[in-house]
Amino acid sequence: MPKTERWQWYVEEFSATEQHHHALEETYYSGKTPFQSVAVVRSATFGKMLILDGDTQSSQADERIYHETLVHPALAAASDRSSVLILGGGEGATLREVLRSPDVRSCTMVDIDGEVVALSKRYLPEWGAAAWDDARADVVIGDALAFLREREQTFGVIVSDLTEPLPDSPSHPLFNGNVFRDIKARLADGGVYVLQASTAGFHNMALHAKMARTLRGFFVHVRSFYTHVPAFDNDWAFLACSDRSDLAALDPATIDAYVAKLRGENYFYDAETHRRLFALPLYLRRELAKAGETF
Amino acid sequence: MPKTERWQWYVEEFSATEQHHHALEETYYSGKTPFQSVAVVRSATFGKMLILDGDTQSSQADERIYHETLVHPALAAASDRSSVLILGGGEGATLREVLRSPDVRSCTMVDIDGEVVALSKRYLPEWGAAAWDDARADVVIGDALAFLREREQTFGVIVSDLTEPLPDSPSHPLFNGNVFRDIKARLADGGVYVLQASTAGFHNMALHAKMARTLRGFFVHVRSFYTHVPAFDNDWAFLACSDRSDLAALDPATIDAYVAKLRGENYFYDAETHRRLFALPLYLRRELAKAGETF
Amino acid sequence: MPKTERWQWYVEEFSATEQHHHALEETYYSGKTPFQSVAVVRSATFGKMLILDGDTQSSQADERIYHETLVHPALAAASDRSSVLILGGGEGATLREVLRSPDVRSCTMVDIDGEVVALSKRYLPEWGAAAWDDARADVVIGDALAFLREREQTFGVIVSDLTEPLPDSPSHPLFNGNVFRDIKARLADGGVYVLQASTAGFHNMALHAKMARTLRGFFVHVRSFYTHVPAFDNDWAFLACSDRSDLAALDPATIDAYVAKLRGENYFYDAETHRRLFALPLYLRRELAKAGETF
Amino acid sequence: MPKTERWQWYVEEFSATEQHHHALEETYYSGKTPFQSVAVVRSATFGKMLILDGDTQSSQADERIYHETLVHPALAAASDRSSVLILGGGEGATLREVLRSPDVRSCTMVDIDGEVVALSKRYLPEWGAAAWDDARADVVIGDALAFLREREQTFGVIVSDLTEPLPDSPSHPLFNGNVFRDIKARLADGGVYVLQASTAGFHNMALHAKMARTLRGFFVHVRSFYTHVPAFDNDWAFLACSDRSDLAALDPATIDAYVAKLRGENYFYDAETHRRLFALPLYLRRELAKAGETF
Repeated sequence: MPKTERWQWYVEEFSATEQHHHALEETYYSGKTPFQSVAVVRSATFGKMLILDGDTQSSQADERIYHETLVHPALAAASDRSSVLILGGGEGATLREVLRSPDVRSCTMVDIDGEVVALSKRYLPEWGAAAWDDARADVVIGDALAFLREREQTFGVIVSDLTEPLPDSPSHPLFNGNVFRDIKARLADGGVYVLQASTAGFHNMALHAKMARTLRGFFVHVRSFYTHVPAFDNDWAFLACSDRSDLAALDPATIDAYVAKLRGENYFYDAETHRRLFALPLYLRRELAKAGETF
Repeated sequence: MPKTERWQWYVEEFSATEQHHHALEETYYSGKTPFQSVAVVRSATFGKMLILDGDTQSSQADERIYHETLVHPALAAASDRSSVLILGGGEGATLREVLRSPDVRSCTMVDIDGEVVALSKRYLPEWGAAAWDDARADVVIGDALAFLREREQTFGVIVSDLTEPLPDSPSHPLFNGNVFRDIKARLADGGVYVLQASTAGFHNMALHAKMARTLRGFFVHVRSFYTHVPAFDNDWAFLACSDRSDLAALDPATIDAYVAKLRGENYFYDAETHRRLFALPLYLRRELAKAGETF
Repeated sequence: MPKTERWQWYVEEFSATEQHHHALEETYYSGKTPFQSVAVVRSATFGKMLILDGDTQSSQADERIYHETLVHPALAAASDRSSVLILGGGEGATLREVLRSPDVRSCTMVDIDGEVVALSKRYLPEWGAAAWDDARADVVIGDALAFLREREQTFGVIVSDLTEPLPDSPSHPLFNGNVFRDIKARLADGGVYVLQASTAGFHNMALHAKMARTLRGFFVHVRSFYTHVPAFDNDWAFLACSDRSDLAALDPATIDAYVAKLRGENYFYDAETHRRLFALPLYLRRELAKAGETF
Repeated sequence: MPKTERWQWYVEEFSATEQHHHALEETYYSGKTPFQSVAVVRSATFGKMLILDGDTQSSQADERIYHETLVHPALAAASDRSSVLILGGGEGATLREVLRSPDVRSCTMVDIDGEVVALSKRYLPEWGAAAWDDARADVVIGDALAFLREREQTFGVIVSDLTEPLPDSPSHPLFNGNVFRDIKARLADGGVYVLQASTAGFHNMALHAKMARTLRGFFVHVRSFYTHVPAFDNDWAFLACSDRSDLAALDPATIDAYVAKLRGENYFYDAETHRRLFALPLYLRRELAKAGETF
């Protein structure tokens, strides 16, 4: 690679001692919204990347791994997926995956940062694709918490694609018992609530385990699942919560029937992948079995 | 972290545009053997790390993920695990895992680089642990190829822990049809040959797929399995080859019975983890199904 | 510094083993012209920086060190500075410094890359300042070589602010005997030709010495001078060539009288600084005294 | 450069946003003494480097620039250089330069960190060379402050090669009025006290100026001088203090006579270099002329 192509780098700092350096081919945008800093860049390996507050949110090359994992197990398991709610998900790919299911008749997405939505439409059209213009989509720019409290509608599936509830994050006030009660109030009876839920890496499982412990106080079935997302340099975890469905026990035939009806082809997910996602290694099962703090 | 702790870094270059930077707390050793460059360092997140030719070989914090995956599925599936052969594996952890099985009566390990073995005994005692002194162990410093050709013994399990067959690697001549014929000659009838087999990352699956295609010409059952190894920043793949056992179909009860007999506790592997390892995502199954070159 | 401010870095590679990393606060522009890649960025220490083909060209914080050194010794020494020619100098600061002298009645600047000129006007207004609109300025977008051959005018001072004549640079064809003959043809009798002339760092003096040796074949007096330019991380060298003036012997009173007449205040240069610039350390004098190749 | 040669890097952090990265060919030593962290490494451009608390102290390739500048102007100016005191200077190169003068009959060096002295003898023999065994050398491991107070001897030249008086440095208590009184008490009448005195870079002159202001309260003549030291990535400053000698006005003939008598050849320093060292640019003279705090 000639030197002129290698002057600008995106450095993701995982800690004071661990960093991933990506040489960038282009910086499309770099700025601040009222809520966070935003950048859209392009690297040779990952293609376009969306960066919020210095953290990779998704990359063109592997965002389907993340978004198919977030959306399809929950939709496959839901007894009623006609109406879906997405919290966050500003880049539009969660919306895109939800709308690939012909059973979905309406999908409401609530994101607080309208600038991220606008930047994603402009710079990341591959993410949202036709979903932004789908008649079933209702994109609300606003506070997810207020939305949950003010609406009376219920949803068969609620997908939370918020950033992690770290102290400085705009998502932090969205992770506590009051909010879970609000979410349950919006969830149809027996519906599925799924959320991205921090990392499952051996060195950093504590936040995920705390999220899982907290949610077990609110739902009959709370299942952890995870996959390595290369652009995150980490094993990324999710939680599937329901009073009726145990996603770890979902029948392979049900999954494959669901996948077969999706518009377009999956890249990552089907019944075999589902088996991988929900089969957890020993060290993670041990961590999840520990007692400890809740939110 | 004070500045004085952060002056020395290990930079692993995955490509001209992707790097992982680890701040080091200590460099125990850095030098060259007749075969490769070797370093033993320590980082805050990964503990001690063994680096060969600039690539991470294993880290104290997660080497059990790699070594349990390399060793135990094969041993669990083998009809006869009384005698095991390890090719490579200089740091001793593969030997340690093999010897945890009380069914193993002898384990021969052949590594060409005696200096790596000596450095591992000195600086990485946690890797080999008591295995170096186990009466069942026979550590041979020498050329694996010559060993395969000169011995007449057969083994119920052969574990290949060689570095990747990249053009400049000392392992390169060990990956071709002649060698596989030699390996089969040393493998007991119906035995299991398992090897670490490059990456399964979405951006770099080609070498693994080529290895798999090649081995399908030699064995009835050739199964890919993989796990994310955090210290490698990658999904790491393995191949299990046998004329009798299909490791993807191994019975959970058999696995758990095998694991229950191991000395000490597993960190990563059991029947549920086995299910994860062998359940492959769509994109990898598609890659493996493609026709293409062989070695 | 919060993590969100430190995700983007400009890495200047001096060699395969030496790099300077600057955390960037902003990337104003990054793209390619027909001649080179261009970026305008901002760092905390250096302010705005202009980067061509991955190399720092000038920084807001210390560009006066470079530009005062390039321009004022030559103008102070020239017997006639009424008309000045600048080759290159696209960011406009060389033009700005020349026009600070009230003795200058016209200054022609010839730069091949009109996009760099336009980007500098837009993003680096501090560099060119009022000079772009000065009635004495004549900015020609075009090939310096063609300009030298086609014009018949002569100039009392010619200032070359071209990038280094490295093999891939657009400046490479501008550094050879034919060009020096063309320059002499445009230089008034006894005029001064000054050029930026690569580094004088102990580890990288060879190109400068070769430039000096070459020019000694064309001019009676050829003097090296240099200063450390922090944004370049290097000792930067210049050559002053004249058949009449020996700049190393220039009278301090002449310098101070010249400086006193300049519009605005100098930051770096006066008679004492001149003494520093032209007093060379032993190792550099030894290098310059060696025989060797010429261009 | 092959990848295997480029895995280990020394990162010097100048600030949270500026870093110099050196690829290392070897780490000879890395550890901690009771006073500081110490490393001895080797890079392609700079050769061996001594690093204390994460900061470059000297490099094989350019240490003569630093050490000749620290020692020879003071010795050249001193009316009596028969006995010299060095404070700090653990790597031995300051001692080596002092002993190159045949006029020096004894040189006492006091360094608190005996481990740095021992490591320098072992790993950096090029620095101290024959000086360690010179009969005129008296190397005292101990506290410089105690030494100054307990001895009654006076010295014609005192050379301070202590690390910068930053808050956490072992040198911090050695920089205040009481210490300067102690130093004057040990300095022969009309002797010269010279010290390394932080940076003169445009972005970081404040500490140097404060040191200069402080010393003007103790000596008739206090002169700043500086040179770019490539391994430091910075303009490095010194202060020459004397009640009799003004080093900025030192006669070139005196300097050249002094240099001619030195054993071996200089690399950097002679009368012309002296002129460069003491001729300061405008911005630094302005900074030094400002009123402000003292130590």
